[in-house]
Amino acid sequence: MNIILLGSGNVATHLGQALKTAGHNILQVWSRNNYNATILANQLAAEPLSSISSLNPTADLYIIAVKDDAIHEVAGALSCRGQLVVHTSGSTDLSVLEGVSLAIGVLYPIQTFSKAKDLNFKEIPIAIEANTSSAVDLLHTIARSITSKVVRLDSEHRAVLHTGAVFACNFTNHLYAIAQHVLEQKQLDFDLLRPLIDQTAQKVKTNDPENVQTGPAVRGDSKTMNKHIELLKNNPEYLEVYRLLSQSIINSQHKKQTP
Amino acid sequence: MNIILLGSGNVATHLGQALKTAGHNILQVWSRNNYNATILANQLAAEPLSSISSLNPTADLYIIAVKDDAIHEVAGALSCRGQLVVHTSGSTDLSVLEGVSLAIGVLYPIQTFSKAKDLNFKEIPIAIEANTSSAVDLLHTIARSITSKVVRLDSEHRAVLHTGAVFACNFTNHLYAIAQHVLEQKQLDFDLLRPLIDQTAQKVKTNDPENVQTGPAVRGDSKTMNKHIELLKNNPEYLEVYRLLSQSIINSQHKKQTP
Repeated sequence: MNIILLGSGNVATHLGQALKTAGHNILQVWSRNNYNATILANQLAAEPLSSISSLNPTADLYIIAVKDDAIHEVAGALSCRGQLVVHTSGSTDLSVLEGVSLAIGVLYPIQTFSKAKDLNFKEIPIAIEANTSSAVDLLHTIARSITSKVVRLDSEHRAVLHTGAVFACNFTNHLYAIAQHVLEQKQLDFDLLRPLIDQTAQKVKTNDPENVQTGPAVRGDSKTMNKHIELLKNNPEYLEVYRLLSQSIINSQHKKQTP
Repeated sequence: MNIILLGSGNVATHLGQALKTAGHNILQVWSRNNYNATILANQLAAEPLSSISSLNPTADLYIIAVKDDAIHEVAGALSCRGQLVVHTSGSTDLSVLEGVSLAIGVLYPIQTFSKAKDLNFKEIPIAIEANTSSAVDLLHTIARSITSKVVRLDSEHRAVLHTGAVFACNFTNHLYAIAQHVLEQKQLDFDLLRPLIDQTAQKVKTNDPENVQTGPAVRGDSKTMNKHIELLKNNPEYLEVYRLLSQSIINSQHKKQTP
């Protein structure tokens, strides 16, 4: 498949590398940032472009992997007829691409990407959506060439999935950051918590999180919670997070017991 | 070393197995729950006890691994002179053991335990504290026999560490549970998020969480946040968590930019 990549950020980089490894040709990489376009194009043996008007109009697939609020603008600059144009956003409707081409779609890899960290794409679920059945088939074939886990979701379900991902990934990472700050305020090394973080994630590979919940809130151990609240009293923001999440854990227990 | 274990829960089970594997003798396992005491004692080739008055008074080490609010009562039932008595609680002061023996201490494994999940103790940091230097030495030797990571912390620092652990582990797991509920309300499979959860934890093995934060809040992408808020509107509790953690991520960014 001949593919053109629009974007040079984390998603474009990892997706481009996975597609290249799967044997596809990345013809061109366009990015507003000429420097990044060149770096990524070099990695993918593609032509770097900083002007969108120089795009090859005959590729099979155009992947728009830019910030959500730039998708509309980038898509509007394309001149396609029937070629498949997709974006990679979890929370953006397919409709943002309406009118751009006869075949439009979404290819959303359900993962968090950092350029510095290599990834095995094979295990990453990809959610796809498209406006015609032949476009769905094409997208499915492409997605299956880089992962074994492809799921078809409409825009509404994809947005729900993306909301869940914010809790499971973005908020979780922020709690790691809060933990690090709590420790470092008392000169404690964050390394002390790294094995715990790893194990907490390992446990839910094979369990439902609710069934492996530990800690003072799920035990109803108010003495320990009060001690923690006392220790956090100089940090109203963390204190509020502590109270709200503890209460939410307590509420879940009540729901479990009185279904 | 001859060791007596008081308790038969997750911590007692994993600690007992690790100590046994390291070559120590577990003489007896006492638990209020006779059935659990018998199961664990059998695993450790130890004598099960349901009456605390039958404890062997000549062991080298007595480990109290019971719920925090039961430590005081269990300790009070011991009749030790100079033998080392320790508890395993992150948030309980050493002072809870005062008067129980001449040598008292704490051995706190910084980990989340489930009986069903095997653990490699070698990577688990253990925080130790004791009231005399010879007790510290003894505890250090025992801890080093099961892990390469031993740190000496006083009760105040251990409580801070435990508070951090609640954010990094207990609250994180609860966010996984919320994510699962958000998905299942729309018949989406939690498996779709499992690789993301794993990768989020993997990333902070070698990075500071603040440096790998992703998602709409850190990008200041209010359009996406508003879409998520709209999707969560029927669940006021999750909505409150969403708002608070998003705001907290935004605040962290401001702090980074205006140090």
